[in-house]
Amino acid sequence: MNMIDIISKKRDGQALSQAEIQYWVDAMVADQVPDYQSSALLMAIYINGFNEQETSDLTLAMAHSGDVVDLSSIAGKIADKHSTGGVGDKTSLVLTPLVAACGGKVAKMSGKGLGHTGGTIDKLAAIPGFSTSLDSQRFIQQVNDINCAIIEQTANLVPADKILYALRDVTATVSAVPLIASSIMSKKLASGADTILLDVKYGDGAFMATKEAAIELAETMISIGNNNNRDTRAIISSMEQPLGYSIGNALEVKEAIDTLRDEGPEDLRELCVEAASIMLVQSKVHDDIESAKAHVEEVLASHQALEKFKEMIQAQDGDPSVVDFISKFPKSNLRSAVLAPQSGYIAKIHAQNLGMAAVALGAGRQVKDDPINYGVGIVLTVKVGDPINKDDALCIVYHDEPIEDAFLEQVMHDFEISDKPVAASPLIETILD
Amino acid sequence: MNMIDIISKKRDGQALSQAEIQYWVDAMVADQVPDYQSSALLMAIYINGFNEQETSDLTLAMAHSGDVVDLSSIAGKIADKHSTGGVGDKTSLVLTPLVAACGGKVAKMSGKGLGHTGGTIDKLAAIPGFSTSLDSQRFIQQVNDINCAIIEQTANLVPADKILYALRDVTATVSAVPLIASSIMSKKLASGADTILLDVKYGDGAFMATKEAAIELAETMISIGNNNNRDTRAIISSMEQPLGYSIGNALEVKEAIDTLRDEGPEDLRELCVEAASIMLVQSKVHDDIESAKAHVEEVLASHQALEKFKEMIQAQDGDPSVVDFISKFPKSNLRSAVLAPQSGYIAKIHAQNLGMAAVALGAGRQVKDDPINYGVGIVLTVKVGDPINKDDALCIVYHDEPIEDAFLEQVMHDFEISDKPVAASPLIETILD
Repeated sequence: MNMIDIISKKRDGQALSQAEIQYWVDAMVADQVPDYQSSALLMAIYINGFNEQETSDLTLAMAHSGDVVDLSSIAGKIADKHSTGGVGDKTSLVLTPLVAACGGKVAKMSGKGLGHTGGTIDKLAAIPGFSTSLDSQRFIQQVNDINCAIIEQTANLVPADKILYALRDVTATVSAVPLIASSIMSKKLASGADTILLDVKYGDGAFMATKEAAIELAETMISIGNNNNRDTRAIISSMEQPLGYSIGNALEVKEAIDTLRDEGPEDLRELCVEAASIMLVQSKVHDDIESAKAHVEEVLASHQALEKFKEMIQAQDGDPSVVDFISKFPKSNLRSAVLAPQSGYIAKIHAQNLGMAAVALGAGRQVKDDPINYGVGIVLTVKVGDPINKDDALCIVYHDEPIEDAFLEQVMHDFEISDKPVAASPLIETILD
Repeated sequence: MNMIDIISKKRDGQALSQAEIQYWVDAMVADQVPDYQSSALLMAIYINGFNEQETSDLTLAMAHSGDVVDLSSIAGKIADKHSTGGVGDKTSLVLTPLVAACGGKVAKMSGKGLGHTGGTIDKLAAIPGFSTSLDSQRFIQQVNDINCAIIEQTANLVPADKILYALRDVTATVSAVPLIASSIMSKKLASGADTILLDVKYGDGAFMATKEAAIELAETMISIGNNNNRDTRAIISSMEQPLGYSIGNALEVKEAIDTLRDEGPEDLRELCVEAASIMLVQSKVHDDIESAKAHVEEVLASHQALEKFKEMIQAQDGDPSVVDFISKFPKSNLRSAVLAPQSGYIAKIHAQNLGMAAVALGAGRQVKDDPINYGVGIVLTVKVGDPINKDDALCIVYHDEPIEDAFLEQVMHDFEISDKPVAASPLIETILD
């Protein structure tokens, strides 16, 4: 077996065998395949496709390319959730304690952020003292004790994905369903959870531009998960605007806390209640969505979910008093309002541009290992559909360095204003299970 | 302009602009494009194709990526000829003096061989003293004096092709018409001749497996040549067996000398007469093929072409007496006959395998800079269609080191023997102009 024959086969539109895909992934991780061969194969896969079997074979070969986490010593079903990446997406911070407070188990491994979408690990790092680098024994013990934990992925989780992702990024082969699906699902399979809930986003700045493409990606991932004995379901949600109001690490944790106190933004609450209910059914804590949803509403209203979040912060060496004293969070020194240039109705809020603007302020990384400023970010004061008057605030920019007028003007243009009333499309498009 | 956008366009099946192709070639030669990006683009070109304009733009950008030879100080039209690579193909050695003896001008730049097809430069190096590294002034002077010269390509002729060829070889992107056509034609355009005759081969071991594919390649190259004011024509010829009887450097020069003495193999003679006649019409030495052919026949019969070859050897520091005293050529010490395992008719002779067998004996290079043994090779004793008796010789292997029986047995299997009479297909399939 050799790479040239494997590349030729896919170039000519033939299906690759399990052995050929395994050969490629193994040799790549052993640094025995030059990048120019993998990139030629990636382009052939992009154009000629991978069938369901090939995508499943690639996912499994990648999942086994490094550490595989064993969570079998945790009693009960472990639920996991993955978002394909949204701006202002702090759902994991809300969902994890919410499911745990209802009796579900969440042993979550997350990554750092890169580019316009932030990472859950970076958001948690805004909580003073919070540690995301627990060893596996402590991680498992914590989930057994309090039902939840969120830690950073080990360095050797799916090394094949790290190689492929870096290469796809520079060879215009990112947006292919089989490659996105195998990248996401290999990490989910290697992370050891029993059930997987996917939040597949579509629209501006999402991997998938259209509903239809998001559904295709979700169906591919569900098929991989179910073929590997993981109960896998998906929420298809819109990214026509950021989720909630806040973008930026500490700002997002505060919004998550508001939501756990049942005082958060409507869209974020809706998504968290829906997702938590599905995860509780997947975990067999509840038999049906209706009873799960009633339970979720109850732990929100009673602040049990908020208490669970404090427990998790405490267990992971953080200061739980931040939940009640939010002034203890890192904060920026300066704030600038961005005003509406005309009256009308908010028609669209360009999530990706606002995500990149937050990165430019220091909230995220443009390249790996960039330092993070946890206090900066952007807080919207409007959502799609809202009426607006000229010179009313569209958002507040939280920053530490003086910023140029051009920056604020750019942010202003990320809000489209229509003369006529606009109806926001529903956040949740559909649920696939 | 950036590489990711260019790759994305071709990935999505769009045509690239002249500026985009120029950007890629320039940046690649300046070592500013990583191999993994060029290989992804090559695969996208392989699968999604290049239209006529893109192929022409790539060819011109490549042709101007390094030295461009100026032959304008040579009086009259300069004819050039290119073969897409055949085993036992010594036509350039015959054609160059043949056309020159008829009054045509041939200022030829050739390459060294790699893999199963030998290079004209390596064959000439089998002539004691022969120099192929004349400077351009001497090269031009010699063509003005005696009508012909063959030298090695300068190191900086079409550097873009060197980079792309090496990459195509290891990424399964060799056999795409636009890439083959631009590789060949960029070198022809940079070499400065006024007319180009292409010998496009098809069959076992040729770039093109079928007649149809060879014709498609030839038409693409003719269109590029004609669009650049080069009278470009093509012979489509079969490679169902080696050309002539001899494979190996000195052995092939001897067969070329036999042919110039009008005592050579029929197939080689036919191809050389046809090609020389077309080149004389292209050069405007003759108005039509019939009068050109009569002239070619005359200089062959009168040995004027043979004398012209001696003149060229003398002018390039070689010993012209080798032509009359062939024992002065390098020769191997050992020879082994390969015998027919059964009686019948020769149905097929696998040219590529025999070419690789000759390389294994030392006649060619498996990797760049391998040393060459000029004396070794293989001389067939049969051609397709010949009747054969069990234990008659199929070929004689000329070697310097003892060889294994397994090697001879392998060579034996490269001759297919049929029980029924076999008609050889014509060498020349068609001529395109």
